[in-house]
Amino acid sequence: MRDAAYVADYTGVDIRHGWKATKIDVEQQILHGETSEGPQSLPWSDLVLATGARPKKIPAQPKHPRVRVFHGWDDVKPLKTGLMQGSIDHVCIIGGGLVGCELAEAFHSLWGAEVSLIEAEASVLPGVADPEVGFLVERHMRESGVALYTGAAVETIDAGDEGAVIRVGENQIECDTVVIAVGVEPNLDLARRAGLEIGSSGAIKVDRFMRTSSPHIWAAGDCVESLHRITGQPVYIPLGSLANRQGRSIANTLNGQNEAFPAVTGAMAVKAFDWNVAAVGCTAEQLKMEGINFRTMWFTGEAMPGYWPESKEIHILIHYEIGTQRVLGVQAVGECDVTKRVDTASHLMMRGATLKDLSEIEHAYAPPFSPAIDPLASAAFAAINQEQGLQSISPVADIEKLHVLDVRLADERENKSVKCPNLSEIEMGEIRRRHEELPDRPLLIVCARGTRSAEVARWLISQGREATYLGGGMNWRGGGGEDAAILNSQF
Amino acid sequence: MRDAAYVADYTGVDIRHGWKATKIDVEQQILHGETSEGPQSLPWSDLVLATGARPKKIPAQPKHPRVRVFHGWDDVKPLKTGLMQGSIDHVCIIGGGLVGCELAEAFHSLWGAEVSLIEAEASVLPGVADPEVGFLVERHMRESGVALYTGAAVETIDAGDEGAVIRVGENQIECDTVVIAVGVEPNLDLARRAGLEIGSSGAIKVDRFMRTSSPHIWAAGDCVESLHRITGQPVYIPLGSLANRQGRSIANTLNGQNEAFPAVTGAMAVKAFDWNVAAVGCTAEQLKMEGINFRTMWFTGEAMPGYWPESKEIHILIHYEIGTQRVLGVQAVGECDVTKRVDTASHLMMRGATLKDLSEIEHAYAPPFSPAIDPLASAAFAAINQEQGLQSISPVADIEKLHVLDVRLADERENKSVKCPNLSEIEMGEIRRRHEELPDRPLLIVCARGTRSAEVARWLISQGREATYLGGGMNWRGGGGEDAAILNSQF
Repeated sequence: MRDAAYVADYTGVDIRHGWKATKIDVEQQILHGETSEGPQSLPWSDLVLATGARPKKIPAQPKHPRVRVFHGWDDVKPLKTGLMQGSIDHVCIIGGGLVGCELAEAFHSLWGAEVSLIEAEASVLPGVADPEVGFLVERHMRESGVALYTGAAVETIDAGDEGAVIRVGENQIECDTVVIAVGVEPNLDLARRAGLEIGSSGAIKVDRFMRTSSPHIWAAGDCVESLHRITGQPVYIPLGSLANRQGRSIANTLNGQNEAFPAVTGAMAVKAFDWNVAAVGCTAEQLKMEGINFRTMWFTGEAMPGYWPESKEIHILIHYEIGTQRVLGVQAVGECDVTKRVDTASHLMMRGATLKDLSEIEHAYAPPFSPAIDPLASAAFAAINQEQGLQSISPVADIEKLHVLDVRLADERENKSVKCPNLSEIEMGEIRRRHEELPDRPLLIVCARGTRSAEVARWLISQGREATYLGGGMNWRGGGGEDAAILNSQF
Repeated sequence: MRDAAYVADYTGVDIRHGWKATKIDVEQQILHGETSEGPQSLPWSDLVLATGARPKKIPAQPKHPRVRVFHGWDDVKPLKTGLMQGSIDHVCIIGGGLVGCELAEAFHSLWGAEVSLIEAEASVLPGVADPEVGFLVERHMRESGVALYTGAAVETIDAGDEGAVIRVGENQIECDTVVIAVGVEPNLDLARRAGLEIGSSGAIKVDRFMRTSSPHIWAAGDCVESLHRITGQPVYIPLGSLANRQGRSIANTLNGQNEAFPAVTGAMAVKAFDWNVAAVGCTAEQLKMEGINFRTMWFTGEAMPGYWPESKEIHILIHYEIGTQRVLGVQAVGECDVTKRVDTASHLMMRGATLKDLSEIEHAYAPPFSPAIDPLASAAFAAINQEQGLQSISPVADIEKLHVLDVRLADERENKSVKCPNLSEIEMGEIRRRHEELPDRPLLIVCARGTRSAEVARWLISQGREATYLGGGMNWRGGGGEDAAILNSQF
């Protein structure tokens, strides 16, 4: 147990438990607080605020023991006890962000509870990942047994002795415990009372040395805003990885090594059941809000070479700026090493990377770890090809109005045919002989992952045809057949 | 099967099997060759050489069916047949490089054969990893059942009907099959006959567009040399990852998009049983040969947070230039994701990264993937601390002549005590109270991983003491006790 005595022994730092800071006297440089022995005060020469964040609330949120948050030790303990004792059987999680998705797995896989997850936005992981990626995560969570409700806000929560009933859209969900996980907001009480400047993101404004508007008061962690490397705007990204680095940065500066904290790319990751999701930079929605002119590439590949027994598919999405080809956002998802690819993107985006930079990465290659060309580089190649005229469309686009050419092998199409009124099926190997069978219309070429269809589209274009291809391929849509038909109605 | 017909159908490329190129007529731009139907020739406007490499030989290598290489299909098939049928029971591998280590695992774990591995250099993976890292891989391979012989060259190989006998140093190894895996050398016959320039590394010299000394002849893959990003010198690095990218680069240039191929960092990876090894940049030996003034940091951490059940230790070594703090080489090893860390280093070293750049990486953090501060950043922090006076020594250094202070907890030291004539054992938490018990001598502080010992060393230095710490900690040495005592005599 790393208590105050431990910390004092090991580091010499004096920890004051139960000392609740109430007011900062900026002029006199004194911190006032409350303890069990009455009011106390501490003089300071420099003060570091690390007041963190608290859970956001929703309008419908009642004050009731069945309606909880997942934030501190006091929140967790009764949940764990209830789950262990079997008094919690069905948990309804409100909020499908990083914490909501992690909780869904924990409650379901670790504790065997029935789990319903409600997300007001159109897809899970809003603000982290685009709907195309959220859709993949949702499919996996549904297959893993989670009841998912997206695109509808919670209207009422009726909590009583017997359980809770949640009204969301046309659904009524009955459960025994509700966990609200709709994100956090910075704890600003002390900062506001001290008159410190709050930034446009709603968190404490700091300069690049993590100094607040008061020269000897510093702040770090979930209570401060950062500068976003892609948009150049202040942003609130409460992540443990940033908080840790900010703490060290302030310590170095206070010890005389003025250490600036760099702008952030917003790299983050989450494990939802067997799937890993990682993202960096901006989502399409954030780019639209910033008025940045971008295009997107969706790519499906393998995380290891195809012949490697443990290889799994990886789906990658890249947003890039039209013209400069600057990389604006990268998202990766699959039952494989997605953080390696997003880390790479993050480090290069920090340095203003273009698609060419992503395509030129030199990775440590051996078959147990990656293909000879890493899928991130392949995705960048596909995006570069797109800027040279080989255009793709979103893997979840409505394809009903297009003439689709499916170039997969016959046995790949079995039970996985494309549900589309205008469809041709010609295997890639026969295209050069049979392309004249195709109607004289713009064509959408599809295959399993988007690789063969891109090649066929390129060749057809060289023959004077108008052709695009389905980025990420039918596998992104679930392979085809009835699943993909359902998808058409969703997007 | 991707035969010539498949490739023609799918891509329109005309493949000529059984067409052995014998001579390039540079003036007339004609390629001469032999086929089963006699001599043939092909005119060309541009010619791409992708002649690859062939296995190197050793002086003692006899021509005998029991003495094989592992290179082409013809080499592999009889080995696999012998292993499956049980006629191969004990394989002796000569060469402990990437291929030798992979083969040791395959023969032992996949086919159940007894395996002996001989490496002439002092440790396995020479040229890839430093002895400190090779030592860790060796320990793991020995524990996995491989008989290892390092630091002695093969003197004779006597192969006969009944088996083969290898004399190496004082050992005689009897086995039924010998596999020579001592690296490859470029196939230069065609290039030499065409008068193309051969570079100082011994491979075909190409410019940054992969063009040979003849303007319409290009070359890529295991027959060319590269420019090393760290040393600025030509280097021969035959890796599939580079070959793939070079092929695309030439294709783009030949299609009118002059695409330069960048200098290389030499990122590589290998799996040896359950341990993963990755490396980028230069080894200590290569840096010494180049006359580059460097220092080293050895770091042991966890690949995920300590509380995560699947977390494993990761060992990281960083070489950096004294003064500029430019990163010169990074090696990582462990039963965990080492390629993620080396990929990061590679991408940043490509851009001239310093220790500060490595320390500032923003990674996609969640507990299943990494700690909040990635171990690569922590290793860079330790190296920066070292440049500020907190010096470490190699985890495999001979510590017998030093006064050692072990700050581990008593139960960590049990059966793992440091074998050293001058030893003090004081837990870290007691140092502030008991430091005056220590003799007035330069101290080497040790702990399990090098983290606590670095903190104690820093504090003792602040008290006016002379102190260094064991980089990477006792865990790098196998924890302590008799194992580490044996180690002392090796280094």
